[in-house]
Amino acid sequence: MADRDGGEGEGGTVVTPSAEFPPLDPDELRALRRIGDRWRDARRGRPPGADLLPVDPTLRRHPDRPAPTRFGRLAPIVMFRVGEPDELVATEPANLPGSRLGRAATRLRRVLFGPPLSSAAVLYERMRKLVALPVLSSDLLSSVAYGPEAMLAVLLLAGSGALGLSLPLAAGLALLMVAVGVSYRQTVAAYPHGAGSYIVAGDNLGAGAGLAAAAGLMTDYVLTVAVSVSAGIRAVTSAVPELAGWTVPLGLAVVGLLLAGNLRGVRTAGNLFVLPTYAFVVALLALLAVGWFRAAGRGFVPVDPPPVSAVEGLGLLLVLRAFSSGAVSMTGIEAVSNAVPAFRSPEWRNSRTTLTWMVAMLVLFFGGLVGLIHLSGLVPTAEQSILSQLARVTFPSGPWYGLIQAATALILLLAANTAYNDFPRLLFFMARDGHAPRRFLHMGDRLAFSNGLVALTVAAAVILVAFRGHTEALIPLYAVGVFLAFTLSQAGMVLHWRRRRGPGWRRRATINAVGGAFSGLVLVVAAVTKFTEGAWVVVVAVPLLVLLFGAIHRHYERLHRSLALHPPSGGPAPGPSVVPAAPPAAGPAAPEEEELPEQVRHLVVVPVARLNRASLRALAYAASLGQPTLAVHIAPEEPEADRFREQWRAWGDHLRLETIVSPYRAVIGPLAHYLEALHASRADLVLTVVVPEVVVRSRWHRLLHSRTEQRLRAALRRLPGVVVTSLPVHPGG
Amino acid sequence: MADRDGGEGEGGTVVTPSAEFPPLDPDELRALRRIGDRWRDARRGRPPGADLLPVDPTLRRHPDRPAPTRFGRLAPIVMFRVGEPDELVATEPANLPGSRLGRAATRLRRVLFGPPLSSAAVLYERMRKLVALPVLSSDLLSSVAYGPEAMLAVLLLAGSGALGLSLPLAAGLALLMVAVGVSYRQTVAAYPHGAGSYIVAGDNLGAGAGLAAAAGLMTDYVLTVAVSVSAGIRAVTSAVPELAGWTVPLGLAVVGLLLAGNLRGVRTAGNLFVLPTYAFVVALLALLAVGWFRAAGRGFVPVDPPPVSAVEGLGLLLVLRAFSSGAVSMTGIEAVSNAVPAFRSPEWRNSRTTLTWMVAMLVLFFGGLVGLIHLSGLVPTAEQSILSQLARVTFPSGPWYGLIQAATALILLLAANTAYNDFPRLLFFMARDGHAPRRFLHMGDRLAFSNGLVALTVAAAVILVAFRGHTEALIPLYAVGVFLAFTLSQAGMVLHWRRRRGPGWRRRATINAVGGAFSGLVLVVAAVTKFTEGAWVVVVAVPLLVLLFGAIHRHYERLHRSLALHPPSGGPAPGPSVVPAAPPAAGPAAPEEEELPEQVRHLVVVPVARLNRASLRALAYAASLGQPTLAVHIAPEEPEADRFREQWRAWGDHLRLETIVSPYRAVIGPLAHYLEALHASRADLVLTVVVPEVVVRSRWHRLLHSRTEQRLRAALRRLPGVVVTSLPVHPGG
Repeated sequence: MADRDGGEGEGGTVVTPSAEFPPLDPDELRALRRIGDRWRDARRGRPPGADLLPVDPTLRRHPDRPAPTRFGRLAPIVMFRVGEPDELVATEPANLPGSRLGRAATRLRRVLFGPPLSSAAVLYERMRKLVALPVLSSDLLSSVAYGPEAMLAVLLLAGSGALGLSLPLAAGLALLMVAVGVSYRQTVAAYPHGAGSYIVAGDNLGAGAGLAAAAGLMTDYVLTVAVSVSAGIRAVTSAVPELAGWTVPLGLAVVGLLLAGNLRGVRTAGNLFVLPTYAFVVALLALLAVGWFRAAGRGFVPVDPPPVSAVEGLGLLLVLRAFSSGAVSMTGIEAVSNAVPAFRSPEWRNSRTTLTWMVAMLVLFFGGLVGLIHLSGLVPTAEQSILSQLARVTFPSGPWYGLIQAATALILLLAANTAYNDFPRLLFFMARDGHAPRRFLHMGDRLAFSNGLVALTVAAAVILVAFRGHTEALIPLYAVGVFLAFTLSQAGMVLHWRRRRGPGWRRRATINAVGGAFSGLVLVVAAVTKFTEGAWVVVVAVPLLVLLFGAIHRHYERLHRSLALHPPSGGPAPGPSVVPAAPPAAGPAAPEEEELPEQVRHLVVVPVARLNRASLRALAYAASLGQPTLAVHIAPEEPEADRFREQWRAWGDHLRLETIVSPYRAVIGPLAHYLEALHASRADLVLTVVVPEVVVRSRWHRLLHSRTEQRLRAALRRLPGVVVTSLPVHPGG
Repeated sequence: MADRDGGEGEGGTVVTPSAEFPPLDPDELRALRRIGDRWRDARRGRPPGADLLPVDPTLRRHPDRPAPTRFGRLAPIVMFRVGEPDELVATEPANLPGSRLGRAATRLRRVLFGPPLSSAAVLYERMRKLVALPVLSSDLLSSVAYGPEAMLAVLLLAGSGALGLSLPLAAGLALLMVAVGVSYRQTVAAYPHGAGSYIVAGDNLGAGAGLAAAAGLMTDYVLTVAVSVSAGIRAVTSAVPELAGWTVPLGLAVVGLLLAGNLRGVRTAGNLFVLPTYAFVVALLALLAVGWFRAAGRGFVPVDPPPVSAVEGLGLLLVLRAFSSGAVSMTGIEAVSNAVPAFRSPEWRNSRTTLTWMVAMLVLFFGGLVGLIHLSGLVPTAEQSILSQLARVTFPSGPWYGLIQAATALILLLAANTAYNDFPRLLFFMARDGHAPRRFLHMGDRLAFSNGLVALTVAAAVILVAFRGHTEALIPLYAVGVFLAFTLSQAGMVLHWRRRRGPGWRRRATINAVGGAFSGLVLVVAAVTKFTEGAWVVVVAVPLLVLLFGAIHRHYERLHRSLALHPPSGGPAPGPSVVPAAPPAAGPAAPEEEELPEQVRHLVVVPVARLNRASLRALAYAASLGQPTLAVHIAPEEPEADRFREQWRAWGDHLRLETIVSPYRAVIGPLAHYLEALHASRADLVLTVVVPEVVVRSRWHRLLHSRTEQRLRAALRRLPGVVVTSLPVHPGG
């Protein structure tokens, strides 16, 4: 599963740790060259040897000698090895954090999730069809464990007499499955590099549609986890009723296990999937065969279901609701389209064949089960899933019943795991396009997208707790997101064919249009008929998510525009005397002139509260930079200011001191305003504020120190042209 | 009340905002001079004009021109005015924070608490005796509102027959009051600069005893607030029973009001106290006169109390418990001793006279009330305070009953306010001695010790909620802390007289010894008999507080030792080539050599993630310092490292670049270890790491950025010799 690709953007469908460092585009490269030329001109006159470093940066002389402090206290181990010229390669121990707490946490994490994996371990495996089938179909096929039951539960509201409607509804759903399946067969063929709905809809209908599809898919993935886990636990509690009270804790435990397993990184997952999926298929086939054989023996005369009185009248609305509940059996049909590049060559044909098999099996299972349930006269109950009832009726003795329940629970677990693979990948592609926070680009030290995994787990856990782990209560939320993604993807394909106008484009467009229309119909039916039962959550969440993605994108775009390299406006740089009268419209960020080192004019400012070793170190550091230096003292009242000036003179008055009496005893405000006034009087100056920061070790000792340095830094970072230098002072002992 | 002094240390009893900036001791001044001489020698060869600043630091040319950014956007106002030479005085607007949120918060605070007060507004007022009496006695006299009742409530446990014991117990308590009062008369005379228990015990018995007294006093102040507020509310609910269910919310509201009032700073509090205190005195005198007059009319024959059956047997333990409960009436007797310097001259005589009056009134009220309650046959009930019952019986009609209840509630409020004055002052003196966190030295912008006020409020609110605002439940906690402070203070006085051996020292020592012995007895009785009823809280809390104060003191001492200036070890400073083979025992903190600017050797390191305007600014800033500069790039995999080196060459390779491939994708760890390795290879180098920091405005935008800079700073501040420079980059728009 780790080798499916969830989308295709400018950067291809490849998931790579380098995505955090996007390459420069040609424009930027050109700008970079011209900026470099200006540096060369400006620095031409420097004395030779000015660039000589006082140390060997390649550490060739000290590759394995750790420093005598806590960072290196661990062991005399090689932290770096020399790679190419001017390149070091960090070894594993170099990743350990410096603090004792951090190291302990890292060690615990390694025990739980294994040692870190090198970037070189990213796999680009290809799957045979016989492996791809179980890997990709677990999500789809597992839905028959709850789909038929969801449909029957709605029909039962109109009394047991209405259950007979399940047969025509099943026929309609089978039609829908085939239509959507055929439609996806075309999508797969057209997008051999990955045909995820986010990509297809975004490509053909515009970014907004892509984001809507992504939002739908995200709710779908979260609900896949929640529904699959709760249905899996229902399979267990049907067999072992004693566990019935533990649904929510068990669900949370399973979700936690899925998180742990995926943080560990389930590599070469294919083999893991083969056995349970085929076991489920065999078990279901056996169930159907035996059941239908017996029914044939009875001459296909249905057993009368136990009488259940009607709660609602049997109307069109109820039938439509039952239909859209049954449609959740189709969730997972899109899995193949995401995974096309993971197939062996020819990808499109192999994936299309796999898709056909999957849909055929789905239709067989769904139809067979609904029919058999009808013939056996079973009705949904709260205690036992209907699949469990059917298995008990069909195999009253022997190990078969247990095997069916176990296989069902296992395949549902795999279905949930599918979402654990797809959700972080979707976020990765969205983050690469700037539609999701950048942190979803980062691969953890096990090469898993840890942030995405945690986000999915939290969302699924919240849903599980909020709905008390009841599968039935979750179904109304489920269909909307899935069918939104289906609809947008098929609609995108219609436009795709129309634009290309290749041979037979009309036929292809029609097929996709039919699939899209069917999906759209289910979407509308699900959203309308189940709105009050929970579908409103998704109906509200999807537009909000789309707005959020848009806002994130705008923020990153703005940031990129203001930080990207633009070719300089040309001409020699103006001297420092030419200060712009008003800041340019782009705000106070780095006017072009600041970008050459020779043009930076410094003033070093040292706030001094009292004269001790820490402040004298700060003064020495500041003076050693060889730039004009000014010391500032903030006094709460006049007498203290006088006293401080006396001490300053006793020291020798080596640096210019300015005292500021702050009669209201505030320190940060007056200092910030003073620096701003200095900056206002010479806008080309860069003010470097040197702040000594006493580093105390333990957390509770930190409570004894006012966080002046931090507050000062927070206040000053808003000021343009003010640089804050923290000089850590380590008190001994 | 704001003009009492809570103690006397090296710095005198004066509360001053300069306490945050303690002066240098002579040793330190000498060291400072010698360090200054070494600077002079080292810097002798510098060219003239090297110290010339590029701006006028006195802002003489720009006193009122605000900068064109958000800091100055408010209005063209004068932020600074010029004081003495080289001195500016910040005006009020200079205190406004720069962020919009911060400014809104400041404005709200000013609406609530008034405009800031200048340091010059600290008052040193002196009190006449007629003003001092109400100011200082509110705490003491108000205790008769709950003291007698607390005693009777314990006796009632042995049935109404035991209530007769109240008379001999009251006689014993009167004796105790006189003994402690006489004892304090001596203390006041001996410590004319303030005779708080923390000072007297610490002076004579050692720091530990002083801290124990302080811990006792702190619990006392917290309980004074809790008990007075709950008793005051009981006075109200006795008159208006409809409010009975609202005890806790009302109590929290009162505590909140006290906090707000004291944050605002209740100046010239004396006048505020005069009226309610004298009203209470008059009301109580009237109650006693009328009550005793009527009792005389009945021939002093006591009315039989309603029969109440015994819950416990009448034993010595119960009697002692009743005695120690009654002793809470003495809380507040120490108030005068804290306030000696606030009296008019001769302070000791005036304060002694005031003390005598107060004790006389206390004995009169306490004895008179207990006797009258006995004669009237009243028993404590849950619904109404016994003082309210007595007032109802004595004044069945007319406005007198209401007046008595109102005066009682008011004086109890003032008693709570007394603690609001004393608690922060005690913390101030403790903080000055380094026994409490330094932040308690800081005066807020209304000249109040905001941190201490908030701490007291939180503690009192927690106690009020935990005990549901029941006065009776709080009494067992109350006596222990008070009598601990009394005992330690008197014991200290005994030693004081023994050491001085002045005329009549034996008599004086005996008086204090008697007072101390009585107090100690009550302390032991209270702690033992009420241990399980709540006194254990204080018995456990006081030693823990003492340990905490000790730990705080040790931390500050250690810090002071390592930061204080010591005379240099002498001789010319060794050159940079003389690097100590092993760091000295004091840890890696600043060896003597680092303290001269001419000896600091620099290497500037710029971590570069990608080449954009932010990183180019950082490179320009680094290069402009004129020191050797090294750029470092951390790459997640080899191909990215190659790509980055290509870009670097496209730019022109102006600075030395070292790439570190981090195959496990961590950034912070490898960078920190690399810097440490560099530092290890040349221990005398100061590494300045220049980190560009993108400043985004809104909080939620910040969520979209990984906090790499902050995490880097946190990791690097542990490393000795590594300085972190944050270069804020403000993206436009």
